[in-house]
Amino acid sequence: MIEVVLAVDLGGTNIRMAAVSADGGIHSRSRAETPTNVSPTELIELTVRMAGECCSSLPDDSKITAVGFASPAPAALDSGGVLGKLPNLPTLNGMDLAAALRSHLPYPVVLENDATAAAIGEHWLGASKGFSNVIHVTLGTGVGGGLIINGNAYRGVDGTAGEIGHICVEPEGHPCGCGSRGCIEQYASATAVGRMGRESGFFYETALDIYNAAKGGDPAAGSVMANVGRYLGIMLAGLINTLNPEMVVIGGGMAASWDLIVGPIDTEIRQRAFSEPVNRVKIARTLLHDDAGILGVACSAHGLA
Amino acid sequence: MIEVVLAVDLGGTNIRMAAVSADGGIHSRSRAETPTNVSPTELIELTVRMAGECCSSLPDDSKITAVGFASPAPAALDSGGVLGKLPNLPTLNGMDLAAALRSHLPYPVVLENDATAAAIGEHWLGASKGFSNVIHVTLGTGVGGGLIINGNAYRGVDGTAGEIGHICVEPEGHPCGCGSRGCIEQYASATAVGRMGRESGFFYETALDIYNAAKGGDPAAGSVMANVGRYLGIMLAGLINTLNPEMVVIGGGMAASWDLIVGPIDTEIRQRAFSEPVNRVKIARTLLHDDAGILGVACSAHGLA
Repeated sequence: MIEVVLAVDLGGTNIRMAAVSADGGIHSRSRAETPTNVSPTELIELTVRMAGECCSSLPDDSKITAVGFASPAPAALDSGGVLGKLPNLPTLNGMDLAAALRSHLPYPVVLENDATAAAIGEHWLGASKGFSNVIHVTLGTGVGGGLIINGNAYRGVDGTAGEIGHICVEPEGHPCGCGSRGCIEQYASATAVGRMGRESGFFYETALDIYNAAKGGDPAAGSVMANVGRYLGIMLAGLINTLNPEMVVIGGGMAASWDLIVGPIDTEIRQRAFSEPVNRVKIARTLLHDDAGILGVACSAHGLA
Repeated sequence: MIEVVLAVDLGGTNIRMAAVSADGGIHSRSRAETPTNVSPTELIELTVRMAGECCSSLPDDSKITAVGFASPAPAALDSGGVLGKLPNLPTLNGMDLAAALRSHLPYPVVLENDATAAAIGEHWLGASKGFSNVIHVTLGTGVGGGLIINGNAYRGVDGTAGEIGHICVEPEGHPCGCGSRGCIEQYASATAVGRMGRESGFFYETALDIYNAAKGGDPAAGSVMANVGRYLGIMLAGLINTLNPEMVVIGGGMAASWDLIVGPIDTEIRQRAFSEPVNRVKIARTLLHDDAGILGVACSAHGLA
């Protein structure tokens, strides 16, 4: 018999699920596109269908012990399974996820913020395994963050900690969906890269286009990518001075541009942060890629985080 | 019999000492000006003389158990009593303080960063007593910081954590002594207030002059003080999003301008940080004032931090 949890990672683009055992083994998977303006009812129907797909390919003697659900919402510690505010999936704001799942999937539900889940996943099985103080940066549609402090996920007093994506790097900079201006999310997310590309007068539409143009030697595209690294370095220098961590892990889709951003990040950090914490910190790339969040919330659902 | 530690707080302007018991009682005190370009030998002579003054007014059956020494250096956890780099007291860089004290004062020496000591002091006996997750901001000649995480002082992997004074709030802003540009220290320290005053064309020289002019209704001085609060709010919004703390304590000499800066801090935080952590966090003023550092390092030297 194997005991598994159903681990879900709900993103703005995709919803992924996997059945994960307590050793981190992935025994089955399912994946779907996140419907536009997904309603709570649609989310439950989709989750139940995907759970069915995951379970159908598990051995007959498998036992499901819990559901772990990572989403782009702060994981309020006393929420009782209610999602908070999801800036990128507002149709789910305040949804009582645990109650809604319960009639279909009779398991305890553990909620986790997706970026915190990614931090936990990398710390459990990936790049930051064995390190006690880690800043995890998820560069995707937005910029998320998760903290490992003294070996454990740090969620803050209400569970909203880790929102490094809204650290200000330009006081009067680009307006951000959070209501502030000049957040790092406006300079280092895939969305921001697309915008900065268009501002530079490109025909390129996506972050990937701009990355490829930069790789191909286009100087303007190269400058956009270098600016991403520079702003990340400004933000990380402050966090490195503040937290003196052993490692910063860069994950999320934009981590694919690692080769173009790690140099500018390193340069900026060395110019701005104190030498002792800079010499200590390792800047590392995700090892778990798209599975970081699923494995992290599986770790939480197994009671290991 | 009372057991006390000799707690020292070495600053750029003054050196203070007190004999402190494990309940936080201050049984005697001594204070001197920090000599300009103080040498290691001078520091030891001064410390020994002040220890003599402190001890002479203690009851005869007092027992000294340790020396706690707070200084504006990162408290490297494995330093063995060696000071690291002191940007504002560079003549003491790398001084082996514990060894130098030992021949005169035969007690264990505990080193602490002064801003971390202030955070510990306020958490032990002051404004943040009873709170588990606290950001302590010391606004003095520079800007220092100390973190309480999950009820304990957080020093990072090497003991250099808490240096929030060098979080960047203007990427191309005023050059900072740390080698970076636009650090909050360049916009919210007493030194910075003096500079911003002079930049505004004042004859006022000191932060206190500018504070008094602002209180007296001078609009340009008022604008300088409001800008201090605004930049602190920008920096704190990022830390509040990142750490979701229960409290931010403002201490140091510039805390005397509390009435002029707390409004702009609050406004900026509410505009920039997420509502849940903003609604949670209390912005509080130091209760221990100049004694925060001494009491904090006494707490450490008693083995209580």
